[in-house]
Amino acid sequence: MNETLLMIPGPTRVAPRVLKAMSENIVNHRSAIFGKLLTDITQIMSEVFKTNNKSYLITGSGTAAMEAAMVNIIQPGDKILNVVSGKFGERFMQIVDSFGAESKVLDVEWGEAVNPDDIKQILDEDENIKAVTVVHNETSTGVSNPIKEIGKLMQNYDALYVVDTVSSLGGDEVDVDGFGIDICVTGSQKCLAAPPGMAAITLSDDAWKIVDQNDSLSYYLDLKKYRKGGKAEPPETPYTPAIPLIYAMHEALNVIIEEGLNQRIKRHQLAAKATRNAIKALNLELFPREEVSSTTVTAINIPEGVTDAELRGTMRNKYHVELAGGQDHLKGNVFRIGHMGNITHRELITTISGLEMTLRELGFEIEMGEGVASVADVYLPQNL
Amino acid sequence: MNETLLMIPGPTRVAPRVLKAMSENIVNHRSAIFGKLLTDITQIMSEVFKTNNKSYLITGSGTAAMEAAMVNIIQPGDKILNVVSGKFGERFMQIVDSFGAESKVLDVEWGEAVNPDDIKQILDEDENIKAVTVVHNETSTGVSNPIKEIGKLMQNYDALYVVDTVSSLGGDEVDVDGFGIDICVTGSQKCLAAPPGMAAITLSDDAWKIVDQNDSLSYYLDLKKYRKGGKAEPPETPYTPAIPLIYAMHEALNVIIEEGLNQRIKRHQLAAKATRNAIKALNLELFPREEVSSTTVTAINIPEGVTDAELRGTMRNKYHVELAGGQDHLKGNVFRIGHMGNITHRELITTISGLEMTLRELGFEIEMGEGVASVADVYLPQNL
Repeated sequence: MNETLLMIPGPTRVAPRVLKAMSENIVNHRSAIFGKLLTDITQIMSEVFKTNNKSYLITGSGTAAMEAAMVNIIQPGDKILNVVSGKFGERFMQIVDSFGAESKVLDVEWGEAVNPDDIKQILDEDENIKAVTVVHNETSTGVSNPIKEIGKLMQNYDALYVVDTVSSLGGDEVDVDGFGIDICVTGSQKCLAAPPGMAAITLSDDAWKIVDQNDSLSYYLDLKKYRKGGKAEPPETPYTPAIPLIYAMHEALNVIIEEGLNQRIKRHQLAAKATRNAIKALNLELFPREEVSSTTVTAINIPEGVTDAELRGTMRNKYHVELAGGQDHLKGNVFRIGHMGNITHRELITTISGLEMTLRELGFEIEMGEGVASVADVYLPQNL
Repeated sequence: MNETLLMIPGPTRVAPRVLKAMSENIVNHRSAIFGKLLTDITQIMSEVFKTNNKSYLITGSGTAAMEAAMVNIIQPGDKILNVVSGKFGERFMQIVDSFGAESKVLDVEWGEAVNPDDIKQILDEDENIKAVTVVHNETSTGVSNPIKEIGKLMQNYDALYVVDTVSSLGGDEVDVDGFGIDICVTGSQKCLAAPPGMAAITLSDDAWKIVDQNDSLSYYLDLKKYRKGGKAEPPETPYTPAIPLIYAMHEALNVIIEEGLNQRIKRHQLAAKATRNAIKALNLELFPREEVSSTTVTAINIPEGVTDAELRGTMRNKYHVELAGGQDHLKGNVFRIGHMGNITHRELITTISGLEMTLRELGFEIEMGEGVASVADVYLPQNL
């Protein structure tokens, strides 16, 4: 029995009613009853994506959906602009590379957001760029990229606009049609607060045009097959899907509709503000520049005099709060608090209180209660 | 609440204890606690595969594992011998094709098993064949291919021996090391009786040698990353895995170990025999030649004078038993009874009794009770 509070940037805590939904009996995935569920869940996904286009579910991680976004529109030699401001931007680049396409990299300092003007400049200089990839919420650095502003400038170019909203959709502002996003991908286990293992993707008509001109470079992730399955009667997935995860995701999406997407985003914004305020009150340092910091995960520099293992180990073993470490060159330098999904002030109070005790135990002269007070302050009715 | 008895060739009925296991809290997939689970489940997978090699879990359908088996060993232009005796043999061929490799097809009449001598002849004539793919249990036709005999002859050739045991592992004889299988893939939702959404793969040293000489043609399915993750401390998957499905699969594998793999296979053999006897007693016709018929699924010709929709519709709506239809050119011509996973005489009695009532209702002059008696007969202690 694992009672540890998950405060990592995914997978996130799954509500009991969502866990319960998973235990429903397995049905035939090529039956009317399942087809109805599939229709329903993909409609809600489109609603959450804020698009009139159809959405498709992929059994796999968010990375599978990122790969699907690329392998259906590229051929070897094609040029793709990959905005790289962290590990997941890098992943898009690696995917493009691994399929023999040319990745043009717009390198952004980790901890910073991309400047849309830099994208504009590259597009102006090179009209052969077929698509631009941007990671909305860079989980690895705790940075939010300005996908709305980028979308505005992308209207003037033919290149497809591909956005990874794996760790933002359902927790931060995403408006696929409003922002002019051509291909948008997400994962089940982040702000949507469903269990891990499912991904979703939606494509604009412009994107489908390119897809239709291409042979997919993957068999499992060939989106034409997903589209064909979606049109079948009853609707179906091309391959046997993770039925229990679809039950769970459906219930998690119902929770989102009940809460209201806008309300949910406000809740995430509050959690982010509360977390950042607490971190500053404890004299810790945010890793990213605060102005570009994420709404769903906060990256914090590990203070001098303590190791990642001591800090997160104490949090886990003594206070039963699981935090995330840094990735790649940030390993050992930052730790991360995920505040995505079903996060309220309660989980933040528990987390920040544990952090205070941990820091004190590890020899830091912090004022006990200052962090917790900063969290509570954000949630006081008069401050809302 | 869906109470329909699933008698399709996957997904299969999942035991309540396995469904329950899914509801355990989500944990960090990069934690010691999850690493321990991953180590444990992959060890049991190797035990079920009967191999000393390591096994790897892939979040995805069986098709994802089939693709993984191919994209890690082929490059465009490579020649692969695909034995095609049904839809899933065909799928291997399509995968090979779609990655620009050359598929040499050994076409076997649907309803028949491949003759190992035909494989031998092709290998003798063409030494450039890099791998041979065989689908052990061809779910689409209800045929079992002789993977043991093929394995024996493959010892004399350099070509890798790739076997799809998606719908046989845990229900029919599979001995990866004993049969000399180089790459073996399976799915969670068939004889293993776990929910759908996970696949597993195991590779011999010879296979890894080829993998190491190749760049993977897929990013998500790059097996070198799975191997690297398996060696990490704690062990991990390259991408966020479907944690609840791994909980469930672990419990389903525990059930298999408790039952005993040999006992489980015997149980499947009995179920297959009982089903075939009942079908013959009802004057229905098996689709495949009986000598090569599958241990886990029985394909039956739809008798003249009735449509697939009438037959399976009546079974579903009146008797709450879900059967499978035919695939591709067999659609409308055959129906299939899956007897894989947690199948005992009880489910077969229910199914055959429902089939008797359905046939009588649809105007067939069958002797009520003959089919049920044939099932019971197989399970009588003196006949075991």
